[in-house]
Amino acid sequence: MINLKGACMFGQSGGPTSVINSSAAGVFTEALSQDNITAVYGAEHGIVGILNEKFFDISKEDQRELDLLKYTPSSALGSVRYKLKDADVDDTDYKRILEVFKKYNVRYFFYNGGNDSMDTCNKISKYMQKSGWDINVIGVPKTIDNDLYGTDHCPGYASAAKYIANTVMEVNLDAKVYDTPMVCIIEAMGRHAGWLTAAAALAKVNGLGADLIYLPEVDFDIDKFVEDVKNVCAKNGNKCIAVVSEGIHNKDGQLICESFGPAAARDSFGHAQLGGVASILANLIKEKTGFKTRGIELSLMQRCGAHLASKTDVEEAFEAGAEAVRAAVRGETDKMVIFERHFDEKGNYYNKNVLMPLEYAANTEKKVPLGWINEEGNNISDDFIAYALPLIQGDAKAPLENGLPRFARLKKVYAK
Amino acid sequence: MINLKGACMFGQSGGPTSVINSSAAGVFTEALSQDNITAVYGAEHGIVGILNEKFFDISKEDQRELDLLKYTPSSALGSVRYKLKDADVDDTDYKRILEVFKKYNVRYFFYNGGNDSMDTCNKISKYMQKSGWDINVIGVPKTIDNDLYGTDHCPGYASAAKYIANTVMEVNLDAKVYDTPMVCIIEAMGRHAGWLTAAAALAKVNGLGADLIYLPEVDFDIDKFVEDVKNVCAKNGNKCIAVVSEGIHNKDGQLICESFGPAAARDSFGHAQLGGVASILANLIKEKTGFKTRGIELSLMQRCGAHLASKTDVEEAFEAGAEAVRAAVRGETDKMVIFERHFDEKGNYYNKNVLMPLEYAANTEKKVPLGWINEEGNNISDDFIAYALPLIQGDAKAPLENGLPRFARLKKVYAK
Repeated sequence: MINLKGACMFGQSGGPTSVINSSAAGVFTEALSQDNITAVYGAEHGIVGILNEKFFDISKEDQRELDLLKYTPSSALGSVRYKLKDADVDDTDYKRILEVFKKYNVRYFFYNGGNDSMDTCNKISKYMQKSGWDINVIGVPKTIDNDLYGTDHCPGYASAAKYIANTVMEVNLDAKVYDTPMVCIIEAMGRHAGWLTAAAALAKVNGLGADLIYLPEVDFDIDKFVEDVKNVCAKNGNKCIAVVSEGIHNKDGQLICESFGPAAARDSFGHAQLGGVASILANLIKEKTGFKTRGIELSLMQRCGAHLASKTDVEEAFEAGAEAVRAAVRGETDKMVIFERHFDEKGNYYNKNVLMPLEYAANTEKKVPLGWINEEGNNISDDFIAYALPLIQGDAKAPLENGLPRFARLKKVYAK
Repeated sequence: MINLKGACMFGQSGGPTSVINSSAAGVFTEALSQDNITAVYGAEHGIVGILNEKFFDISKEDQRELDLLKYTPSSALGSVRYKLKDADVDDTDYKRILEVFKKYNVRYFFYNGGNDSMDTCNKISKYMQKSGWDINVIGVPKTIDNDLYGTDHCPGYASAAKYIANTVMEVNLDAKVYDTPMVCIIEAMGRHAGWLTAAAALAKVNGLGADLIYLPEVDFDIDKFVEDVKNVCAKNGNKCIAVVSEGIHNKDGQLICESFGPAAARDSFGHAQLGGVASILANLIKEKTGFKTRGIELSLMQRCGAHLASKTDVEEAFEAGAEAVRAAVRGETDKMVIFERHFDEKGNYYNKNVLMPLEYAANTEKKVPLGWINEEGNNISDDFIAYALPLIQGDAKAPLENGLPRFARLKKVYAK
């Protein structure tokens, strides 16, 4: 709908990334400059903030703090994991959202998140169309998992990938420092898609790659894994760095962390429950080889390590937010911003924002192409490196204050 | 001994830090410029490299790579945990070292490490004195644990502290993002001294500190801990960030990580390999509160995260190495370089390198003053912040190549 005049509502949803707030900065900066947008609201905890009529008046924020959002990890407005029922089954929430949108004359709605969040965004968009409330709805992608359908890559992925590659390099130097055997197993996030784990392969570009990489796209065989590690150790002075996805599973589809979990927990920690698959495999290798081992879980750090953010990612995330606003003001709706990969005449990568119908994205997972995984299922090809390397270029981090990052501090004044 | 002319031997020992190679760069740069030093050797894997006659001719290295050492984590020459017997009991190793020193006319010996390494350095120094081999021996301190006696602080500590504070800030933003309960328990290294764990308190300076901090300097009571977490949650929207040292123990001295399971493995010095207490406590809190919890072990990253190194630390580590060489050439021996804290007339911190007899350092552990721990034993005072904050100032990291750090690559040509 062209020439809509009214307020805009923006919400953040799903797991944090290092750059989700950069998209927020893009949305806010662009929205505050648009004549058709009469007020800019940021929903507290995404869709729940709208349901509860809790959202912040962004015009009350200092521009400096909005600028710092670009370098501030996690979701500054608060995030949420709230699944809307199908409107056909129960439209209570939808009615409430419509009521709030009418009360505040919300004519622009932007939702920033991954698969589930795009599903939410799609459902709201469709309900508003059916109800006849004129509103332009645009989804802004975000996920460290990089598993959204249709887009070349997702904002947030590259910074997490850079964190993982950088950490693999540093751990590589650390773990191989002694003249004694050492097997180090690093666990990255990713239940079904192995994009994050694959990022370990980037470390190889500067000569400090992982020896073995296992993705959830292929079945994981425990015995083969032990053999793989032994083979690397035999060639490599009894040193091995393996990187595994939390979602690796056996040929029956059972997660390794579940199939081995209880037994390993009893063996190593009495009644205590073990953390993740890295510890389990580290204990297994120790048992089988007698070598010193270490399991490392990259945990929350891989998704909030904004001090290692990719400048390319930060800028693309910002532009995705700004483009969502510009598209909506142009009259686009029911779409999401996606990324298209281009190269200039010198062969330099650049990104182009394009629009895709929201319903294409919702709840479809994009996995690492099987052709990028080697035949043995224990490493990643250079095709992946060619794909990911342009995305992790450049540094962009918060300014230092007291030797530590100065992250954005929002006033968070509730809109009335 | 003044006006000694001969080769210098340098070795790295003990656990890596982000800046141990910066001290190496300081030693090498200074040694290569000294007329009295006829050759510069870097021992492969510390003392073991000397015993095996495996050391590198540093004059063969490119200056650019030696410069990059300043920003390269871990021990570029290889480290070691090898305990020399007392010379009175078994002098085999000492005789061999003397033999190698004579063969290569080694007249300057520099050893870079923590408590155990200073003990090794001291033993070698005393044996050489007894044996009548003229050699100037200077220890260069290094340890993320910050537990060396006599020195204001240790090279390597500040960078690890900065990593921990920075990570606590980022995890703080991430873990508190949802509108649901979340207790996050972060585990830092430190068996007996809580310096690293205390560094979590620095995050408070920029408004994102930990709620609870537990050091091994005081007894840890499980029930009190559960109460502490519940109290924080009650005040704080059911959110809590607690940081614990791997070495926390109950009033009987039993490690918390062991009280829940069998004895951990031990290294060649007989130190237990700790770890896993964050998961144990996270599971405990989950059991007691039903809240979502997460245990995070900062693992190797805290000691090799050179991308977050403190510039102050990098420069001080370099100067400690350079000063060791200058002092030895001046005729000093049987000493180690230590740091003395000073303030200029404007109140700005600066460090002064001074010398201390080696035997004072060996095997004495410096702990966090009890006066810096609050009465409840669950937080750290501002006195600690005043102590640590000047040390973490400034960034210093390796240049980017392919979007990732370009660490030093040594040729490692064996000396003949």
